[in-house]
Amino acid sequence: MAQKTTLKEFESVFPKLEEVLLEHAKSYNLPQEQLDWYKKSLEINTLGGKCNRGMSVPDSVSLLLGRPLSEDEYFQAATLGWMTELLQAFFLVSDDIMDSSITRRGKPCWYRHEGVGMVAINDAFMLESSIYTLLKKYFRSHPSYVELLELFHEVTYQTEIGQLCDLLTAPEDVVNLDNFSMEKYRFIVIYKTAYYSFYLPVALALHMLNVATPKNLKTAEDILIPLGEYFQIQDDYLDNFGLPEHIGKIGTDIMDNKCSWLVNQALAIATPEQRRILEENYGRKDKHREAVIKKLYDDMGLEKRYQDYEEKRVGEIRELIGQIDETEGLKKDVFEAFLAKIYKRSK
Amino acid sequence: MAQKTTLKEFESVFPKLEEVLLEHAKSYNLPQEQLDWYKKSLEINTLGGKCNRGMSVPDSVSLLLGRPLSEDEYFQAATLGWMTELLQAFFLVSDDIMDSSITRRGKPCWYRHEGVGMVAINDAFMLESSIYTLLKKYFRSHPSYVELLELFHEVTYQTEIGQLCDLLTAPEDVVNLDNFSMEKYRFIVIYKTAYYSFYLPVALALHMLNVATPKNLKTAEDILIPLGEYFQIQDDYLDNFGLPEHIGKIGTDIMDNKCSWLVNQALAIATPEQRRILEENYGRKDKHREAVIKKLYDDMGLEKRYQDYEEKRVGEIRELIGQIDETEGLKKDVFEAFLAKIYKRSK
Repeated sequence: MAQKTTLKEFESVFPKLEEVLLEHAKSYNLPQEQLDWYKKSLEINTLGGKCNRGMSVPDSVSLLLGRPLSEDEYFQAATLGWMTELLQAFFLVSDDIMDSSITRRGKPCWYRHEGVGMVAINDAFMLESSIYTLLKKYFRSHPSYVELLELFHEVTYQTEIGQLCDLLTAPEDVVNLDNFSMEKYRFIVIYKTAYYSFYLPVALALHMLNVATPKNLKTAEDILIPLGEYFQIQDDYLDNFGLPEHIGKIGTDIMDNKCSWLVNQALAIATPEQRRILEENYGRKDKHREAVIKKLYDDMGLEKRYQDYEEKRVGEIRELIGQIDETEGLKKDVFEAFLAKIYKRSK
Repeated sequence: MAQKTTLKEFESVFPKLEEVLLEHAKSYNLPQEQLDWYKKSLEINTLGGKCNRGMSVPDSVSLLLGRPLSEDEYFQAATLGWMTELLQAFFLVSDDIMDSSITRRGKPCWYRHEGVGMVAINDAFMLESSIYTLLKKYFRSHPSYVELLELFHEVTYQTEIGQLCDLLTAPEDVVNLDNFSMEKYRFIVIYKTAYYSFYLPVALALHMLNVATPKNLKTAEDILIPLGEYFQIQDDYLDNFGLPEHIGKIGTDIMDNKCSWLVNQALAIATPEQRRILEENYGRKDKHREAVIKKLYDDMGLEKRYQDYEEKRVGEIRELIGQIDETEGLKKDVFEAFLAKIYKRSK
């Protein structure tokens, strides 16, 4: 999620896209009450986030071109960026229902708004459909139109199988640590997060500039998937070891029975006695049991284990970036920008 | 939903498509437990229906060609037919959650199966994704590939705006007949049902045979949307006036506060006194109040009103079919087959 554009600049594109989506709905004579509903769902669920994923599209396009973007180029890249935000909105609205979440971005989840409830499921569908409305409107004559459609279909599917694995591995109400494994952890992280958050924005930038050759896409995937995995592992690390004043929330992974990197590392190296402690205290909505797990993580040296992992992984990613062949239009800068934003972040 | 193929023949294609979908999931290393889950969701949610929508694709293709299909042609047409069934499965799984439904096709709704719950939302997404996996596998090199993708996107969107209107017009727990109107009724029926059930199968058949000219698609739409509207009105009529032994269920539209053709007709012609009776008795889970509404429908002559509507509408549709220009490959037979299946049906 490289960044040179600003949130303000990126957000300034949204009203035009919203207008297009509402005009499209109007063209089917959708009644006013439903139009207002769709508008509210679009705004509440798509706006208000950090837009790291979305903004990384114009940033990547700019790095690939090696120059600032013209107004038209910026609009086109930001439109693709907003499609990644719409895809994320589709997933977040529905994940929050599936996870019985309470808040999202500091506000009540959409399905918990007055009068919304399960209508939110259909709203999630409409957020997904909005992607294809915008693609048709702005990219129908682009040489990569079919590839763009297929890219969104594939990344959507990848995120869904990641979510399926997550839901079956770590149901909120059944604690069974036998379900967890580093193998399942990696599957969930790669498919549920890395593809749509890291690979998708860069693949979109490559397609926009007509340099999405098979080799460039493969190189991007080979770097961005490990990078996305590292990002999520860091997220899991910060949930427990980060400072609440830095990460802006108090971590709840232990009480929420999350299939986190930390618990998987603990399970991998636990003595029988430590495993017993994990079994008896993980995944309970109980502050005391949570404290037992936190103490165990400290005793097991998981902070150091993470730091060793981070240094090793960042070294490997730097190595991969160094080997990039730029002859087909790919640029090392794109990946260095992502890495610089992530390495040793505290929030 | 014309029909010459048999359910048995149509269902014989499913195992191959299921195999393709599971192999596709396996190619991402989806763990075995999740593969089994996806297989079960595919089978429980896609199989077991009458498959009228799906079967109307091979039937329409055969009528357009004016001859029986070769094995390859049948497979291709039935594959498109199964995509309409997957689209319907995606909608039914999620509609059942949104409507708090109990049973579907005589069995518990998928979300009510042991251990499923809200995971069903993600399962619905995966049913939708399956359409695009099959389209890519079997139609990537078809000249209408882009049009097929766009057709599924558009019909999906149309069904979603129909569902949105339905959800906001007739929430199960709030009875407010001021929300109802024939205008809203028509919007809901056309978008929520007619496009995916009637227009989609014929549009797919036209695309498969490379005769989906703008004129043919427009003609198909102009006939199939009124036909779909008539079909749903008939469905609403049968819910109250049909014989349970014919329709295979006991109608519950009155108690479920459905925005049915009958209640909209009643509202349109009610005296102030009759409106009061409607306001006080419609949409309640109470057998006695339901009986009051049924009596009112009888007193208001709604059965005759329906029969008059049916004769008029069928006359108009026959007129439209008679005017079809067959020079671009369209055939009157396709529409006559649909009409013959619907006219004066009792189940």
